[in-house]
Parts: sequence; C-alpha cells; structure tokens
Amino acid sequence: MNLWRIPAFGIDNLELVQSPEPRPGPGEVLIRVHAVSLNYRDLLITLGYYNPKMALPRIPVSDGAGVVVAVGEDVTDVKTKQRVAGIFMQNWLDGAGTAQKHRGALGGDIDGMLAEYVMLRESGVVPVPDHLSWEEAATLPCAGVTAWNAVVHAGKIKSGDTVVIQGTGGVSIYAMQFAKALGARVLGTSSNDEKLARAGKLGLDAGVNYKQTPDWAKWVLEQTGGEGADLVVEVGGAGTFAQSLKAARIGGVVAQIGVLSQTSEPLNVVPILHKQLHIQGIYVGSRADFVEMNRAVTQTKLKPVVDQVFAFDQAKQALRRLESGAHFGKLVIRAG
Amino acid sequence: MNLWRIPAFGIDNLELVQSPEPRPGPGEVLIRVHAVSLNYRDLLITLGYYNPKMALPRIPVSDGAGVVVAVGEDVTDVKTKQRVAGIFMQNWLDGAGTAQKHRGALGGDIDGMLAEYVMLRESGVVPVPDHLSWEEAATLPCAGVTAWNAVVHAGKIKSGDTVVIQGTGGVSIYAMQFAKALGARVLGTSSNDEKLARAGKLGLDAGVNYKQTPDWAKWVLEQTGGEGADLVVEVGGAGTFAQSLKAARIGGVVAQIGVLSQTSEPLNVVPILHKQLHIQGIYVGSRADFVEMNRAVTQTKLKPVVDQVFAFDQAKQALRRLESGAHFGKLVIRAG
Amino acid sequence: MNLWRIPAFGIDNLELVQSPEPRPGPGEVLIRVHAVSLNYRDLLITLGYYNPKMALPRIPVSDGAGVVVAVGEDVTDVKTKQRVAGIFMQNWLDGAGTAQKHRGALGGDIDGMLAEYVMLRESGVVPVPDHLSWEEAATLPCAGVTAWNAVVHAGKIKSGDTVVIQGTGGVSIYAMQFAKALGARVLGTSSNDEKLARAGKLGLDAGVNYKQTPDWAKWVLEQTGGEGADLVVEVGGAGTFAQSLKAARIGGVVAQIGVLSQTSEPLNVVPILHKQLHIQGIYVGSRADFVEMNRAVTQTKLKPVVDQVFAFDQAKQALRRLESGAHFGKLVIRAG
Amino acid sequence: MNLWRIPAFGIDNLELVQSPEPRPGPGEVLIRVHAVSLNYRDLLITLGYYNPKMALPRIPVSDGAGVVVAVGEDVTDVKTKQRVAGIFMQNWLDGAGTAQKHRGALGGDIDGMLAEYVMLRESGVVPVPDHLSWEEAATLPCAGVTAWNAVVHAGKIKSGDTVVIQGTGGVSIYAMQFAKALGARVLGTSSNDEKLARAGKLGLDAGVNYKQTPDWAKWVLEQTGGEGADLVVEVGGAGTFAQSLKAARIGGVVAQIGVLSQTSEPLNVVPILHKQLHIQGIYVGSRADFVEMNRAVTQTKLKPVVDQVFAFDQAKQALRRLESGAHFGKLVIRAG
Repeated sequence: MNLWRIPAFGIDNLELVQSPEPRPGPGEVLIRVHAVSLNYRDLLITLGYYNPKMALPRIPVSDGAGVVVAVGEDVTDVKTKQRVAGIFMQNWLDGAGTAQKHRGALGGDIDGMLAEYVMLRESGVVPVPDHLSWEEAATLPCAGVTAWNAVVHAGKIKSGDTVVIQGTGGVSIYAMQFAKALGARVLGTSSNDEKLARAGKLGLDAGVNYKQTPDWAKWVLEQTGGEGADLVVEVGGAGTFAQSLKAARIGGVVAQIGVLSQTSEPLNVVPILHKQLHIQGIYVGSRADFVEMNRAVTQTKLKPVVDQVFAFDQAKQALRRLESGAHFGKLVIRAG
Repeated sequence: MNLWRIPAFGIDNLELVQSPEPRPGPGEVLIRVHAVSLNYRDLLITLGYYNPKMALPRIPVSDGAGVVVAVGEDVTDVKTKQRVAGIFMQNWLDGAGTAQKHRGALGGDIDGMLAEYVMLRESGVVPVPDHLSWEEAATLPCAGVTAWNAVVHAGKIKSGDTVVIQGTGGVSIYAMQFAKALGARVLGTSSNDEKLARAGKLGLDAGVNYKQTPDWAKWVLEQTGGEGADLVVEVGGAGTFAQSLKAARIGGVVAQIGVLSQTSEPLNVVPILHKQLHIQGIYVGSRADFVEMNRAVTQTKLKPVVDQVFAFDQAKQALRRLESGAHFGKLVIRAG
Repeated sequence: MNLWRIPAFGIDNLELVQSPEPRPGPGEVLIRVHAVSLNYRDLLITLGYYNPKMALPRIPVSDGAGVVVAVGEDVTDVKTKQRVAGIFMQNWLDGAGTAQKHRGALGGDIDGMLAEYVMLRESGVVPVPDHLSWEEAATLPCAGVTAWNAVVHAGKIKSGDTVVIQGTGGVSIYAMQFAKALGARVLGTSSNDEKLARAGKLGLDAGVNYKQTPDWAKWVLEQTGGEGADLVVEVGGAGTFAQSLKAARIGGVVAQIGVLSQTSEPLNVVPILHKQLHIQGIYVGSRADFVEMNRAVTQTKLKPVVDQVFAFDQAKQALRRLESGAHFGKLVIRAG
Repeated sequence: MNLWRIPAFGIDNLELVQSPEPRPGPGEVLIRVHAVSLNYRDLLITLGYYNPKMALPRIPVSDGAGVVVAVGEDVTDVKTKQRVAGIFMQNWLDGAGTAQKHRGALGGDIDGMLAEYVMLRESGVVPVPDHLSWEEAATLPCAGVTAWNAVVHAGKIKSGDTVVIQGTGGVSIYAMQFAKALGARVLGTSSNDEKLARAGKLGLDAGVNYKQTPDWAKWVLEQTGGEGADLVVEVGGAGTFAQSLKAARIGGVVAQIGVLSQTSEPLNVVPILHKQLHIQGIYVGSRADFVEMNRAVTQTKLKPVVDQVFAFDQAKQALRRLESGAHFGKLVIRAG
C-alpha cells in the first residue's frame, strides 16, 4: 500500500512510500481509507511548528474515512464493510478530557490517516452518516467535532441566540452550519466579500469585511441591538481576541479554538471581569462527542462544505492550498 | 369597557359585565387587550377544580396580548403603542422560582386578561414579536413559555435529539415547533389519525395512534433503535406517566407539565432508578424565559398554531370547545 | 481458594465451595479480597427478587476491596501490592450511562466479590484511600458512589443547603457524611430514636421519628422556615415518595435510589409540577465518579460507618442481619 | 449626619461633611450604618482610576451594614430594627447579569455607604447573619459575594477539589473559607511568609512565597500530583494570569476577578485551548447570590477576617492602609 510520511519537517520533504498492508491483531480493525481532510494543525505539524520534538518519520493527517476491510479477534462492535472515520484522540472515548486521554492524537502522537490502509482499535473509529460521501465524511473528526463542542457544549446555543464566526475555514463553516441547525443567527467576518457572499448562500445571516471594518466587534454590537453575541467562535490570528471579547454579550461565551493564534497578544482582562465572560478552550473532543454530532448531522442531513478534492499523489499541493488561506471550507485528499 | 368574570364556578355562570376603564397609577401600564387564548387551567379555574377556595368574582384567563394605551408615572421601559403580552406570574421576573414569585398568576391569584382593558405593572408585560397577529401573540404566555422551558431548559434539546409530544394541544404543538427549530426529531401520539396527519404537515416526524397502540412507548423505542427518547413532554392523562418513563432513554428527561393529570396513578419507581431518569416539573416560567423565547420565535419566524378564533361574547363557546378536546393548537378569543 | 455462590435462590441455599485460584490473562488483575460489604441489592439477588431469570450458580456481592497479587500482560496502570476495590459496573468507566455500560454489574450480571480471589480487568478496579481499613474500603463501590452521585451530581449540594436522609442504612449515612463535608445541614428520619441519637453524633443536625411523626415532611418544612429541603435522598419504602415530594423545596431535588421501593404506590404528580421538582434516578455511577469520590474521602479523611464485621464463613448471618433492618451503616464480611 | 464624599479625585481631597438625615419615600428604607468595609475598587474610585468621568461629588464605598431605622410606604419585606447590608449593584436582584442590572453600583454609579445614614430601596438590602458583628457583616457585599460566585458558581467546588488563592486580601481569604467549608483543599501564594503562616491557621493547606518561587504554578502542579488545580481564583497583578493558566488542571477553571490587573499583559492562548480551560469573569453578583451565600455563612458559622478597624474620621488612613497592601483580610471603618 501507499502512504505519505514526514521524514523531516517541511512540505517539500514529505515522501510517498510503499509499505506492507497491516493485519489486525486482537481488538483492532483495518480500514481502507477513501479520503482524508486537512486541518491547520496538519500543516503546522508538517512544518515542524506544532511540536518540533515530534519523533519522525510520522504519517501525517488526523482526519480520514474509509471502509472496514478486516477485524481482529475480540472485535465486537465494528463489522467489515462498515463506513467509519477515525477519532481524533484515540484514547479519549468519553467524559471529560485528561492528560492520559489527550495522548494518542492521530497524525501527531501516533501515525495518522494519510495512507491507503490504517489500523486502529475498534474503539478508535465511529460509523459515519450514510448520506455523506467519503470526501464529506473525512472532514468530520477534527473540524466537525471541534465546531460541535464550541457551539453545543461551550456555547449551549439555542434558537434565538447569535453566534459569530471568523473567516470561512473548516471549523468556522461547520460552526455556522451547526448554529443554523439549532435555530440561531450567525454573523461572520472575512477579508473577502466573495467568501462572505458564498457563506450567505449557506446560511450566514450577515457578514462584515474586517479589512474594511477592523473594529468588527462594533458592527456585531450594532447587529445585536447593542447587546453583543451569545457566542464567538474564536479561531484566532493576532488581534482577534480583543475584538472577540468586545463582540460578546454580558455573560457570553468565547470559544477559544485558534491554533492560528500562535503569537502572543496583549490581553486586557477587565472586559472579562466586567462582562462576566466565559472563555472556553476547545480541544476537539471525545468519541462520545463525535457520535452525538453524527446524530445531528444525520438528523439535519447536514452536508459538510468541501473546497477542493486532491488526488492521493497531490498531498503537497493540498497542503500548499491550505497554507495560502484561499480555501472555503475543507480541503480533501482522495485515497482510493 | 366589557369584561368577563366568574361570579360562581361553572361555565354557565360566567357573566359579561361593564366596568369603568382603569387609569394607570405609578409604575403601571394600561393595555387595550386585542386577543386572549385559553389554557386547560382556565377551564379548571372556571369549573372550580383548580382552586375551589379562590375568591370570587374573578376575571379569568391568564394569556392575552394587546397594545399599551397609557402609562403611569415612573414607567421607563414600556411605551404607549407598544404591542405587549402579560406574563403568567406577575411577580416572577427572573431567576429560579420561589413561593413569593409564584404568587400573582393572572386569572387565578389575581384578575386575568378576559377584558377589553387590563392594567399591569410595567414589569408584568413583555413586547411581542412583530410578525405575530394578535391572535398568535395571545398564545405565548402560558403554553409557549411552558413548552420553551420543557424543551430548552429541562430537555436541553439540541440537533439530533428525539422529543416525544403527547396529543395536539397548545403546549404539545409548541414543544414540537421549538424542538424542530432546534434541529431535533419529534415523535407524537394522538387518538386521532387526522390530527397526526396535520401535525405531520407542521413538522412531526412520525406519529402513533395510542388508541390502536396503547403501548406507544414500545413504538418510541422502535423508532429510536431501542434507545428511547431524549425528552418526553408529559402533558398527562391517566396512564401516560408509566409509558413516558418507558419511552425515555437512559439518562433521559421527562418534563412533567400535565395539569390534565389530576388523578393519582400507581408509580413504579424502579425504571426511574435503573434508567437514571430526570423528571422535571415545569410550571410555566419567568419573565426572562418569556423574553428568551421571544428571541427564538422572532429568529425562526415561528407561527403559533391557532385552532379557532371566537368573538368576545363567545367566551363560553370557546371554553366548551376546550372542554371537548377536539381542538388542535390554541383556542383564541378576540377582544376588540 | 474459597468462595460463596448461589446455586439456587434463598439464603439457606448459599454454598461455600473451593475453586482453583485464577491466573490473570492480558489486561487482567488478580485481587486477594480482604473484605466485602453488603447492599440491599445483594439480599434481593440472593432471594431471587432482583432478577428471577439470573443464570446460576453465581458468586454474589458487588462490593469488595483487596490487594492486587498478580497482573497480566499489557496491564499498565495497576501494580501488584496496590490496594483496590472493584467498580460496581465493570463496563461503566466514564461519561453518561448507557445500556452497554450498565451491563456487567458485579454479583449480578457477572460473578461478584464474595470470594478469596477475584479477577477483573484493570479498568475494573480503583485504588482505595490509604486511611481506610479493608472493612471500610469494602463499603465504597455501591453505597458510597450512589450517595456521592445523589449529593454531588444530582443535588449539587453546597454549603448552606439542607439535605434529608431516610433511615440509617449505608447509602443514607454516606449521604449524610458527604453532605456534611460539603457544609450542608442534614435532617434525618428513622423509626428508632437510638439510631437518630447515634446519627446525631456523626453529624446529623436534627432527626425525627417517622413512627411518631408520620407526616415528617411537615417537620422538614418547619425546620427550614417553611421552604423545604434542597435535596431529599429517597431510599424508599411504601409511602416515602409522596412525603419526599412534600419535603423538597420549590425547585428542589429528590434523588431516587430506593431499591427498597419494589411496590407501586399512587403518585400525585401535581406537586412535581407546581414545585418544579427535579426527580433524579441514581444507579450507582461510573469509575470516574468513584475516583472523584475517593478524592473527597481522602481530603476529608471521611471514615465509612461499619455496623458489624462477619467472618467469611458467616455470610448467611450477615445477610440475615441485613434482612432484619437492625443495622446502622454497613455490614461487612472479612475475606482473609 | 456625617458623611464622607469625593469632591475631587485623590485621598487627600476626601471631605467629611454634614448633611440632613434623609427620610424614606415609598419603597425605601433608611439605614443607620454601623460599619463599612473597603475594597480595592473603592481606592481606585477615590483616586479616579476606576472611572475618570464619574460625576462628583460622590459618597464612596460599596460595602456597609447597619440597622433599619425607618421604612417608607409600601415596604413589605423589610422591618425596622432589622440588621441589613446593602447589595453591591442595587438593580441586580436575580438571574444573569445584564447591562441594566449592572448599573447602580454603590459608591460608583450612585452614592455609597460611607455615611452615618443611607437610604436604599427595600430590594437593595439583605438581612445579615445573626452571629456576625457589624464589622464582619460590613465585609459581605462585594468581597464575600465575589468569592462565593468564584468558588461556588464558576468553580462548582466540591469536597476533594483543589483551589488556589492569590495573596491574602479580602476576596482571597473569603475564597479560602468558602472552599474549606465545601471540603476542598486550598493552596495559596503570598510574598510574605508570615501571612502564609497566618492563613495556615485559618485553613490554608499549603502556601508558597511567590517572591522566592516565581514559577509558583510549577509548585501547584507538584502539590497536585502533576494534575493542577480545579480552580484558580485570579485576583491579578502583572504576570499572574499566565501562571494561573499553568496552575489549572485540564478542564479547570480560572475565576477572573482581578481589579488589580489594570495593566495589559501578553497572553498566550494555546494553553487555554490545549487544557480546555474555562476562564470565567466574576463581577460580584446578584442579590440572590448574596442571600444564598448568607445561608452558607450562617450554616457554617463562618467568621469573616477583619484586618483592622478604623474610626469614622479615619477614612483616609484606612484607604492608605489598603493602598499599602499590608493588610490581611478586610479593612473596616466604624460608622457609629
């Protein structure tokens, strides 16, 4: 089988190699991967910015979906021919996060999904909704679950609430879709009017170009009768945090996701106090969160937004597209 | 002005009388009522079953909407010409319920809305959504807020969840509408196939005739892959409670509303324990809940379902229709 | 090694047999049991009342503690010489309960702890606090975790709250101890003034003899300035449920535990509605709940209350004492 | 009567003036103030740092307690001779904070308590626990309620949890006392070993001198087996925020209180994300929170810690003591 691996950091160093197809041991399932999707973390990992001490070589990419082609002894819940996706953190099945559960993230702590075949423990996969293509299903594990937890568990969004998304990347578009499915109003920012227009067709209630309106928080306040948003899904970049604090209502939530926010920015904590804000860090989520999200995706027939699909041998081009920031929604690589 | 009052219990005893138009004192607002809606409690009160010791005469009916025609001194937030509805419990503005806040329910502890003019404190009214007619707005205070609290605060319903409603009365239809607005699946029971079909057109995902299928909980389990519902909105009647416990999933919620459930039935508590059920009593809600619900009604352009509209002098006919149980959604009386 | 098993239902049928000492396979740990404790469920199981269709023979008793004497391959977190207790439901490690997690209860679905050696998966045990004797540690798994979940997760008890316990059995005494550790006030009922006096020495703030005061809910209302209790830990028996509903404050919680409540009693649902009560079924809890409770037991140096300790060959006498209801706190059987 | 007021910003400008004793109008109560306590906010207000645009002259100080000496018409719940304290925000009675409820803070938006007589609406006062002296009762409104909300509502602290306090000011000592009352472990920081020793006598489980150990977060991790604290009560000062993020466990809470944190510091948001932290701004709280706290203070016979008591004419000295940071617990001024 073919797989991509990082022998040394840098997109150019990525290498496509051949490897024997693995055979499942007790409790394990073998997946014929059909599609993977990219997250910003995958780019940072490939570049060596995420964890410079990561052991190499490593198969990158956390998110992928495929069909179970073989199961090992003692496997009880997963069957061959089942359509599944891997879960982001292989040890986080349920309940609150812990250091132990956080270990075992695909494409980081352990080998990831950018391979034609991948072997995981049976608890490390979940069935994917029937109405999704492989490309769509491949986008669920990281971007989908992160957005779900931001909107549902951090934001506790309900009909009538207002949610702010930033940009049009995978997490933001998912957050918009979940918020709309829950009956909320969604406001968005972008540097690109065309992207705002496209988001509008997918459900965005109103958008603002933050290049033209750098104080977009003021615009959010105007759009909400001076109250501010119930939830800001903060995906980062220098300067957005202070605007997010300003855009949230008294008692509102700022879901902090932003792996983009690598740089430190000055923080004025006074608004946190005076507005009794709740800032909630989101680090993807558990297997149980994934299953719960899939119920919603199935019930609302939600279709993930795929920007572009690359062939398996075009992994470098896909990462470069991600690096450019030109995408809208998710970037996908076919794997068979 | 004209008003209806209960001089002695019984529908036949209701009398239409003339009374001078009141003038607002400090902090008070005068409302020209345009429509009121009936709840089962209004029938029980009129019949003397709700509180046989209630002081008479009393103006009945808790729910109504109209326009503010005069405001007293010191009124700051409410303006004349504003479209408003009264809140069910005039003293429950915010926070958790208390004995003190529960006192002052319209059409029970104090005079209600079945009058051409009603005077309330300014905190006792809330603005109603612009897109609603008077008839629709009049249905919000009790049925709407009760259903909102059952679905949102007790059930914490989110996209992908399953909600069971019972029958097609006002609270049940509202619960269905809110649950659909939140992206949930809704299952319903009725003794009437036509009503189920009508509910289907309004969003009900599947229905069962409980006359033909007395063990409707089993049907709910089948519809949910054996798991049971996340929330059962229990509005009562003999025998439904045990079925509701059976229909709920492990860890599920049964929102107990049922003023219909006047009779005692045997309770087997073992399922509550083994399924870790959460039974939550709902007693309408606060002014803050009403405002929150109105945001959702506005955002989703939800249209309350009105069964039939009666003229002001037809109040007795309206109560008889409620008594018959033939209605679907809310019964409304015009008041000008 | 010696073990007790149920070849046919009935205390008299219990038999003490010899069996080879088991050896741990992959992921398993072997425990030399030092003490077990009895719960009412163990009596019902032995008598055949809990699950008449249970496969026999079966080793009874869910709760026990001992030392790890051997570990199998791939065991990473548990070490030999560690002092551990088994968890009640071997498959419920974390998160909310599910049908799948509920399967695998010790001494019911699978063999229990009334044996000199027991083998469990490593995830099926938790370390016990250092300051507890074997007899004390053996009381934690069912009674302790049940009371913890009733007080902490259902009741959300905090300093200043009022908790009502019923009788002086294992769960009730634990609930009193946890509630006191959280700074709450605890009121108790009993048919026995001496037991109330004894509970008073352990922290009970006030008690009432329900034989002399059958309407003990009225007494609770008097003790709380007419408000009622924040939490009633309902362990059952005919007639207590209605009193518990009456004793709870508006918005209060009734934690439904009562395997004693085998019989059906008529339920008047109106107080649930009007007082917005939250009735919460409690079915022990997860491994994570157990670990969390142990932190509290360790931090507060809580000492479980042991009524009487029996020798291993006195298992029948221990069950008869439980049947008599004469105990105060927990009944324990030494196992070596 | 005598009162202090700020005619122009600066401690030296404070002036002691005579004014006629007010008489209560409808709904108002007149309080003979017996003691007030100082918060850091009072110092900032006096210096003009809190709100440079505040209208002057203004009577400063938010917190005070005294006896009701007269009540106006329509006052129903408050009686003369009742011992009461004012609530910090006179309009925040219940429920979640809003812009409207946040207006009306004593000693800021409106005149405060540093006067021999103060008139408030009846909803603006709460009865104080019987076992407290006037000096002690005067410390409850801001410092007490803030700490209560940090520990109970933000931290949801329960027995077995670990709480970190910073320094030995009023809020920190209260947070320690509430956390101990809830059965938690409390770790503390100070620049002064004597203060740590004194805190140890009041319940602090372990302390660290942050001058000697600037990386005190590492010490917290060591004290908690590498896990980190469940709650950090962040009262600020440059540099503490980053340490607080480091000291909290995965999924832990940082309660942001810090009016000390006037300066901006760089924020690295990555730990918020990776540790799924919950940062919760606390801005005192509502009347309902105050009443709830008083139940706990009464139940546990908690005694607020008073550093020093000043005579009414020593208000400037009291503020200078606060400015020095030498205090331990609360600074109080007698007012009669």
